Amino acid sequence: MVEERPDPVAARGELLVRVRSAGLNSADMLQLRGHYPAPPGSPPDIPGMDLAGEVVATGPDAARFSEGDRVMAVVGGGAQAELATVHERGVMPVPDGVDWPAAGGLPEVFTTAHDAIFSQAGLRPGEHLLVHGAAGGVGTAAVQLGREAGARVTATVRREELRPRVEELGARVIAPEGFAEHGPFDVVLELVGAGNLAENLQAIATNGRIAVIGVGGSGPVSEINLLAVMGKRARIHGSTLRTRPLEEKAIAMRLVEKEVLPLFEAGRLEVPVAATFGLDEIVQAYERFQAGGNLGKIVLLP
Amino acid sequence: MVEERPDPVAARGELLVRVRSAGLNSADMLQLRGHYPAPPGSPPDIPGMDLAGEVVATGPDAARFSEGDRVMAVVGGGAQAELATVHERGVMPVPDGVDWPAAGGLPEVFTTAHDAIFSQAGLRPGEHLLVHGAAGGVGTAAVQLGREAGARVTATVRREELRPRVEELGARVIAPEGFAEHGPFDVVLELVGAGNLAENLQAIATNGRIAVIGVGGSGPVSEINLLAVMGKRARIHGSTLRTRPLEEKAIAMRLVEKEVLPLFEAGRLEVPVAATFGLDEIVQAYERFQAGGNLGKIVLLP
Repeated sequence: MVEERPDPVAARGELLVRVRSAGLNSADMLQLRGHYPAPPGSPPDIPGMDLAGEVVATGPDAARFSEGDRVMAVVGGGAQAELATVHERGVMPVPDGVDWPAAGGLPEVFTTAHDAIFSQAGLRPGEHLLVHGAAGGVGTAAVQLGREAGARVTATVRREELRPRVEELGARVIAPEGFAEHGPFDVVLELVGAGNLAENLQAIATNGRIAVIGVGGSGPVSEINLLAVMGKRARIHGSTLRTRPLEEKAIAMRLVEKEVLPLFEAGRLEVPVAATFGLDEIVQAYERFQAGGNLGKIVLLP
Repeated sequence: MVEERPDPVAARGELLVRVRSAGLNSADMLQLRGHYPAPPGSPPDIPGMDLAGEVVATGPDAARFSEGDRVMAVVGGGAQAELATVHERGVMPVPDGVDWPAAGGLPEVFTTAHDAIFSQAGLRPGEHLLVHGAAGGVGTAAVQLGREAGARVTATVRREELRPRVEELGARVIAPEGFAEHGPFDVVLELVGAGNLAENLQAIATNGRIAVIGVGGSGPVSEINLLAVMGKRARIHGSTLRTRPLEEKAIAMRLVEKEVLPLFEAGRLEVPVAATFGLDEIVQAYERFQAGGNLGKIVLLP
């Protein structure tokens, strides 16, 4: 449902952005269903974590960007609108060669994947990365980032028809059943759920790290044997990007600017986009998102 | 049971040490019962992870210590003997002012505690540390290390009669029941078991770390809700010292030499010793160890 709202104004340090593109994420879905309140300071009634657009006004002391610049951001909410205000520290430039649909689907998944596999799990060149649920937005980002970092990448993809595309992105793709026999893995990026936990602990190498980012597939609850964690000297990280304060999101985005955006400029990374919708087709967009089976992002183009 | 064995000889890089003191650890107990095989390269039939003694001979190229030096070590096994060979990189000097019983009970617990709360969990000054099972060897070490690092230390101790001694070491001591209400904690050192896991996740602060080192109290298995891990952006570490290769044990010991032993020389740390036994009283020593209820180490004095 699209509603009229008063135009927002850029406060100190902020930018007013005309939104050209806004990717859908599962957190939006949870928020719309009332399961996941908007973080403090974000509009509770406008969803959207991802946005890309043009700067149309700069607030006092905002100096990183100028009117007309193409920018993109991960925000706490409010991205699925015609205009949005964002703090300039929470914004990244859109790399040359990345079009609006891709730019609106880029920030959340690449920042989340980069933060999880490098800042948290400390993936190193030559290590073996396993991505569970690799056909999703964060999964396709993680497969590409792992490949570019010189890691060996294995990916589980449930839907057989999506496996060839994930293979093209640089992973050896396997079915989820019995994945442990393809290990050992140094880093596991968990995007499916707790159902994989016991087998993950069996499949990781000594000093292995498991980064848990999503549990929408098999749910959040499982049994854990701490002797398995001790025996592998393993680490289990859990994380979300959405609830972090501006300063922590900004740090993650500075790292993406430095370590990821140059790879987009060089044409080495892509944002798979499954479908685009206008802002007046938002209901259909969410239906398509919920139906699943897409490789790539669903993006709104206001 | 004490048996005669041929005297060992120091190989390249090794020291031959006349053992003066050897602390008992629960890993020895598990090994003696056949539940925990000796690590590769360690004598399968002589227990003991902790030793202190005098260097009686140096192998070729061993240059860090000389005959007569007082040394101590964490070894994979074989410490509970009259003579032991150890690689010089796996050995630390005994600090001035630390007597033989304390030196034989120092290496394993202080290296384990230091590695867990600093190298793994990254405890920082001003943070709040919770030590579960603080009356044990690793627990008393962790309480003191946390205090010296400028952390606020809370400790759970099951036996009421042991609480005053742990308080003297620098912790606010609480009963294990309902510990979460005394949080939030930035770092939890888990020495009791999986029974605390759900409440630990409830009790930790955002970005909290849980280091799991022991599960002998409530066992290794529990349910885990990964949404709780994600919501706190938490890390769960598991670790053992015993199974690490020499190079990793040596790194941990170099850090103890630099960051912990000077505090012993300054008289700021202590190794509580509950009781000492001769090598011919080893059966009684293990019985005392298993009976529990001790604050401090049980140490053999060969």
